[in-house]
Amino acid sequence: MPVSPGQTLRELRARRPLVHQITNYVVMNETANATLALGALPVMAHAPQEVEEMAAAAGALVLNIGTLSEHWVEAMLLAGKAADGPIVLDPVGAGATRYRTATAKRLLDELDIAVVRGNAAEIATLAGRDAEIRGVESIGVNDSAQELAKEAALALEAVAAVTGPTDYVSNGERVIAVANGHELMGTVSGTGCMATAVTGSFLAAKPDAPLEAAAEALVAFGVAGEDAARDAKGPGTFHAGLYDALYNLDPDTLDDRARVDE
Amino acid sequence: MPVSPGQTLRELRARRPLVHQITNYVVMNETANATLALGALPVMAHAPQEVEEMAAAAGALVLNIGTLSEHWVEAMLLAGKAADGPIVLDPVGAGATRYRTATAKRLLDELDIAVVRGNAAEIATLAGRDAEIRGVESIGVNDSAQELAKEAALALEAVAAVTGPTDYVSNGERVIAVANGHELMGTVSGTGCMATAVTGSFLAAKPDAPLEAAAEALVAFGVAGEDAARDAKGPGTFHAGLYDALYNLDPDTLDDRARVDE
Amino acid sequence: MPVSPGQTLRELRARRPLVHQITNYVVMNETANATLALGALPVMAHAPQEVEEMAAAAGALVLNIGTLSEHWVEAMLLAGKAADGPIVLDPVGAGATRYRTATAKRLLDELDIAVVRGNAAEIATLAGRDAEIRGVESIGVNDSAQELAKEAALALEAVAAVTGPTDYVSNGERVIAVANGHELMGTVSGTGCMATAVTGSFLAAKPDAPLEAAAEALVAFGVAGEDAARDAKGPGTFHAGLYDALYNLDPDTLDDRARVDE
Repeated sequence: MPVSPGQTLRELRARRPLVHQITNYVVMNETANATLALGALPVMAHAPQEVEEMAAAAGALVLNIGTLSEHWVEAMLLAGKAADGPIVLDPVGAGATRYRTATAKRLLDELDIAVVRGNAAEIATLAGRDAEIRGVESIGVNDSAQELAKEAALALEAVAAVTGPTDYVSNGERVIAVANGHELMGTVSGTGCMATAVTGSFLAAKPDAPLEAAAEALVAFGVAGEDAARDAKGPGTFHAGLYDALYNLDPDTLDDRARVDE
Repeated sequence: MPVSPGQTLRELRARRPLVHQITNYVVMNETANATLALGALPVMAHAPQEVEEMAAAAGALVLNIGTLSEHWVEAMLLAGKAADGPIVLDPVGAGATRYRTATAKRLLDELDIAVVRGNAAEIATLAGRDAEIRGVESIGVNDSAQELAKEAALALEAVAAVTGPTDYVSNGERVIAVANGHELMGTVSGTGCMATAVTGSFLAAKPDAPLEAAAEALVAFGVAGEDAARDAKGPGTFHAGLYDALYNLDPDTLDDRARVDE
Repeated sequence: MPVSPGQTLRELRARRPLVHQITNYVVMNETANATLALGALPVMAHAPQEVEEMAAAAGALVLNIGTLSEHWVEAMLLAGKAADGPIVLDPVGAGATRYRTATAKRLLDELDIAVVRGNAAEIATLAGRDAEIRGVESIGVNDSAQELAKEAALALEAVAAVTGPTDYVSNGERVIAVANGHELMGTVSGTGCMATAVTGSFLAAKPDAPLEAAAEALVAFGVAGEDAARDAKGPGTFHAGLYDALYNLDPDTLDDRARVDE
């Protein structure tokens, strides 16, 4: 299937899929707003009494382990088993504590995860490679990100999206490189989590092609970052501009602006 | 009692009432900042050990079920029974899951709710009418919003504030229409929750006239939305501008700018 | 040791210390973003399964009681006992409810707190002096803030940082006054919590001199406030500008801009 972020964005905005997110406290508002600005409908719900009903009604489910605790893990498992659409996992801080690593692995084992989106250290940890992480920030990995994406996809039996200066998305066979984005993205807390929410939104619009949908999402988010950086004076104005840019993304020019390599 | 948002805002800023909010994780910062920018004092507290003491000290209590769980429902009930001032309920997502609908009904049954502020689908669900909701977004209702506000007020024995392109506020007898606002409000997650926090703030300043206070709050919030939209380039700059606009609301011009019809 | 915010900021940006924060739901995103914009690495973690591991890996630990509950207090105690670097406490709302006052005192009793950063009413409450607080806002204290800082440091056996129009930082012997800042800081919810996160970040860079590090942090945050105020039109644009200003703080001019008195 061809990579066409413009076409998928057009589809997404026409359908307005519901994207159920069980995510961390730090970025809930931010991922909700990124989802809404893009054109999908975010909903947050984590109570055991309602997660299954919500997940079953949604076009995609996003799981993010950024501020874990026991009840939230249970909610993720319940929702993940009831989900009807594709599931995207953001293993925030995997490698930083044993609990995070174990929980991310458990979610991968027990659920049918379509895409794992993380930084190099998080993905390397889950794929059983060497990695250094400080809190939730990737400090170093031995493998090239390109190789890592491929190895991780094979090891985790899911599409792996390794984001960084260049993003690499792989299903274990193909590797798609996405060079869109801007360095100011690294200065705002939660842009990784937003990238995951945008990935969930694109998967809801294109559920049968997770490799392409994940790459398209990273193109769209990266292009929005480029637009937001234009008038930004720092992380605060960049952050506000990022929602403007997601909202103003033009499906007609998006394919031309995609810096995709395969 | 006449509708005078300017007069009530003046009162609110002179008194700086404490507005206790037990609300959802997604919008806590946003409703706190909207309350503070307007001129009241927000406080968030949900522990069973302190909610009663905090609620009793506050000028109004705002309950919002946007990210429910068992302990939070208990906290809402404890706080609601101890509250000294008026209580405003935001039934976020009622109709989307059975748990949300049941919880909103339980809060209405067990507490003395002064105002229920929601979108058409949420209010219709609680009033026992047909409605379609996707996550927390109203997709469709059969009734006119005007009729719905009146019917809901009678059914729920509370002032019903149904917000949308035009807002309708009713006590079951009178219906006040408020046409202030801007369509960009629908592009930022949590503007409904902010409208509820502003409603709580106005009720704290005018506790004996919930119908008028709720309508005045929606005028004030709508006018702030109009001001914020002027220089906005999308949801992000609109969102930042909304706090500026709430802070800069001029009580002297507010009555003239009110687009109120009864 | 001399007060040199520029030198400590340079150190901080070179080392990028991890600052572990167990904080309230309202400001998590805001304190994470302030920490990151400044140049340190924030991480939020509160599960009993991981707090000790995270705290031991961090350069400083920030504890904030703004939205308390039982499990979070346990997490703070576990993390505080495992912490390797200095601990900063923000006793949000101490004095507003018995639970908050008792919890802040318990943390001070059971942990080795390096710095307590609060408003006058919060600090006065903990030091056993008269104070009036409305929610989380200081309404009045009898003592001068300068005297209060000194008395509190002695009573609490920690550096006391009392913030207000002028900030006073004391170790019980010396009192450093910091007059940087801007009144718009009081119009944004969570600027006090951000000041505490910045304090934690400075302590991570200068762990052996908590008095000086706390004063330097308040200089840096105050100067950022002054910069952010320049183009702000109200609390929303000020808030966005505050992250820009923290990011753009120039270590080379910071000492000259410090309005410090001892």
